[in-house]
Amino acid sequence: MESCTILPISRSLSLLSRRHDRDEACPCLALLRVKRRSSQPTRIHCQKMYVPGFGEGSPERKAANHLHKFFTHIAVRIVSAQLQSYNREAYDELTEFLSRHSMNDGDKFCADLMRESPRHQILALRILEVRSAYCKQDFEWDNLKRLASKLMDEANTTLMREYVLETSHVETESGK
Amino acid sequence: MESCTILPISRSLSLLSRRHDRDEACPCLALLRVKRRSSQPTRIHCQKMYVPGFGEGSPERKAANHLHKFFTHIAVRIVSAQLQSYNREAYDELTEFLSRHSMNDGDKFCADLMRESPRHQILALRILEVRSAYCKQDFEWDNLKRLASKLMDEANTTLMREYVLETSHVETESGK
Repeated sequence: MESCTILPISRSLSLLSRRHDRDEACPCLALLRVKRRSSQPTRIHCQKMYVPGFGEGSPERKAANHLHKFFTHIAVRIVSAQLQSYNREAYDELTEFLSRHSMNDGDKFCADLMRESPRHQILALRILEVRSAYCKQDFEWDNLKRLASKLMDEANTTLMREYVLETSHVETESGK
Repeated sequence: MESCTILPISRSLSLLSRRHDRDEACPCLALLRVKRRSSQPTRIHCQKMYVPGFGEGSPERKAANHLHKFFTHIAVRIVSAQLQSYNREAYDELTEFLSRHSMNDGDKFCADLMRESPRHQILALRILEVRSAYCKQDFEWDNLKRLASKLMDEANTTLMREYVLETSHVETESGK
């Protein structure tokens, strides 16, 4: 990810920052000014907002880690539902194992399941296979992006509408 | 999502299920057999694994909800870092508000911030704007998919390699 700060400030928020402040906030703009003074040609790639606090990782990596756990949960659900309908014995074994082991760490869960017994090992291999297939084939990545974007619009609109309704109500009340 | 069960069973796992079991587990296969018996033409759409337990939602929606919260966290970090460099007063106000309010529910956090004071309201509007811009422009969705897939391959390989090394070590020990 690019590491330069661009402030997405709309007209309504422009009150908060003065022009020279923006220059200070964005190292690229400051750099541009210095470069201009020294009359040297420069090319600037400054497209993304700087997100602090991820060290050597990135927000995408953190989200991928979370999804990795999520896919293990999903795979256990899928396998469990499949077994329920055609192999009650294996289903009961998996359910019993689930009652004794946390799924907070999906990889550890699979490692423990693999070492429980040869029968559990087959279940573990199946969960590994299903979570991989689910991640690569079944999970609708485009739909995820679409839903997240839609959710964002809806949530922002709702928050602003509620605030406006609330404050206009107060103003109407005080105006009586 | 399609709601039919397909079992991704590799050759190594075929021990677990007998043929008639598979037919019972997959309604589509059973349906196909019935249809064949009745000699009627049939077309089957059976591509995705059935994921139980999401009611009217979907795994994609659940993941989108999680990412929505995550984007609010990110937006607060971005805005906080921006303010730190050019508006210390607003930065201190946001930091102080953060110490008093949980960010578990991002929308509630923004709603509360909006109602704290007119100055906080400007910060809240900016967070709303930044989280939307981050979700739609900055977040690398393709990278997320690539990282999740890579993480899955690495985790599965590691789990299986560790298990094989562990068991082959035990066998070598017992063979001595």
